[in-house]
Amino acid sequence: MINLINKIDEEPYVKLYKLYDNALESGQSNVEAMLIASYSNETNEVDARYVNLKFISSDNFIFFSNYKSPKANQFNAHDQISAVMYWNAIDTQIRMKAKIHKVSKEFNNKYFTNRQPEKNAVAISSKQSIEIDSYEKVINNYEKTLETKNLKKCPEYWGGFEFTPYSIEFWQGNEKRINKRELFVKNEGKWVSKFLQP
Amino acid sequence: MINLINKIDEEPYVKLYKLYDNALESGQSNVEAMLIASYSNETNEVDARYVNLKFISSDNFIFFSNYKSPKANQFNAHDQISAVMYWNAIDTQIRMKAKIHKVSKEFNNKYFTNRQPEKNAVAISSKQSIEIDSYEKVINNYEKTLETKNLKKCPEYWGGFEFTPYSIEFWQGNEKRINKRELFVKNEGKWVSKFLQP
Repeated sequence: MINLINKIDEEPYVKLYKLYDNALESGQSNVEAMLIASYSNETNEVDARYVNLKFISSDNFIFFSNYKSPKANQFNAHDQISAVMYWNAIDTQIRMKAKIHKVSKEFNNKYFTNRQPEKNAVAISSKQSIEIDSYEKVINNYEKTLETKNLKKCPEYWGGFEFTPYSIEFWQGNEKRINKRELFVKNEGKWVSKFLQP
Repeated sequence: MINLINKIDEEPYVKLYKLYDNALESGQSNVEAMLIASYSNETNEVDARYVNLKFISSDNFIFFSNYKSPKANQFNAHDQISAVMYWNAIDTQIRMKAKIHKVSKEFNNKYFTNRQPEKNAVAISSKQSIEIDSYEKVINNYEKTLETKNLKKCPEYWGGFEFTPYSIEFWQGNEKRINKRELFVKNEGKWVSKFLQP
């Protein structure tokens, strides 16, 4: 589930809220799965992975990550990203572009304190994306952390990222492949929309 | 559905074939949906969208597109891409990196001739991603093409792209978030694998 808070009355967001409701009504699972594509200035490679979208607050999209992970390093060096959600239950794709940055420490601390201790043990124990000998060792690290660490204290290396899209495309699949595509682009504070060919 | 042909006996591919079978057995819909993230040298932006993965032939992944589309232009200028499949029915993500290029004209012609005429009418009639006045106009263009054009002849501006991953990560979700991640990287023609922290 995504927490939709501080809803706003701009056309692409009204569309988004409606599609979200439709997806849930159609039994969409993992509705919060969002792909984030980023760029590594170090290797000149595009990279991409799923994250869990936790909040859409006004026009801010928020998810959480380790701040020392490869994606966090990529965001620091190249802050433009692409985010895509695909809800197969309604055959709808939402494509966004944005600049990304960290949320405030206060937000992280408050959010972390209220999470399940088990989730926090993963956040605390994992050096995200760093090599490890085996999956068993991952489990061991997690269990040791669960028993010995303060699970209410947000570590410095963990927290949220937020982005505000400057481009949002709604792509609706069509069984004949005549897909319906509507693009919204923010221009000097105002959304301009157009249809695109499939 | 993805056409798995010329199967090979390399460890990440054996894993991939098995996961594909598991996903289908678990009722995965849109199993062929694959995200392709690319980079625009013109705007320095990361871009991303879903495509339909049609073939995995040996270690080649093949999908089709308009050759004048934004993604085709992006591939031409920056040929490295990231590809991600997420099968929610088995909570499994497959993350790949590769260099991408066009398949042969012969392959395109043969493939096109055997497709449904309705699909070909979309491929012929659509100037992919170019602005159009309305969705009705998209439908009109399609219907006119369906009636008047040779639907067996592959246009120059349409065809396949193929890529061979040099990096494949298998990400298996865990209900406690202690996700299992195994990364295969091709090094001088041989796959090297390691586990990554969640």
